[in-house]
Amino acid sequence: MSKQTETSANGARIDHLGVAVESIAAARGFYEALGLNVTHEETVEHEGVRVAMIPLGESRVELLEPLGPETTVGRFLSKRGAGLHHVALHVDDIHAAWAQLQARGATLVSPAIQTGAGGHLYFFVHPKSTGGVLLEICQDPA
Amino acid sequence: MSKQTETSANGARIDHLGVAVESIAAARGFYEALGLNVTHEETVEHEGVRVAMIPLGESRVELLEPLGPETTVGRFLSKRGAGLHHVALHVDDIHAAWAQLQARGATLVSPAIQTGAGGHLYFFVHPKSTGGVLLEICQDPA
Repeated sequence: MSKQTETSANGARIDHLGVAVESIAAARGFYEALGLNVTHEETVEHEGVRVAMIPLGESRVELLEPLGPETTVGRFLSKRGAGLHHVALHVDDIHAAWAQLQARGATLVSPAIQTGAGGHLYFFVHPKSTGGVLLEICQDPA
Repeated sequence: MSKQTETSANGARIDHLGVAVESIAAARGFYEALGLNVTHEETVEHEGVRVAMIPLGESRVELLEPLGPETTVGRFLSKRGAGLHHVALHVDDIHAAWAQLQARGATLVSPAIQTGAGGHLYFFVHPKSTGGVLLEICQDPA
């Protein structure tokens, strides 16, 4: 592995933690007790999930409540129970990150860089390449 | 140091993600491919773990390699495999956070606020109160 010089190269920071929960209504109270608030909720039909966003410094927690049992998060809950579903890492240049990880031979879940809501870019890296955590790499819209 | 905002009361930010791994040497390469570096490693004998710290914006990833199978992280790996072990949330006033969570009836794993290396303060909250994530609440030394 080539030696890098910067500590957070490519503008890397934790964008969000995706936490699978049975119920946003039940889970949000814990964060509210700490003074952290849900500032935005939305339903993402094509992913079968309702998302509640809780800002946390330069990051946020996303509570993920499945719209039904046969969704990605619904199946995760059946199999593993509530808990961390994925970690999202923001970078300034997602194409560089994609190329660096491909060069290393990391197992990328997404077949290519995807475009999501509002034009943000993202792809997923398999837990077996990251030390057991499903990792999303994302970049804000230009 | 993170700036306190309306949306992140009590100076809350993600302090670190603790990721249990079989081998720091094997796991660090993935982060290095993204330009993220291990800047510090230390062995914490009384917790039975070797820790590699990877700065990431205002947070960091801590790779946790057990010193043996009969340690907290060793047992976690046997039972669950590699992956996220805990999320640590930094606050400016840990005593307020402790009181708020006790008032809410959250299940606190630590019997009281603990003092760790370098004088930082911390306690753990049980996953059943947080939506399935073992949560550490911590505060820097005064």
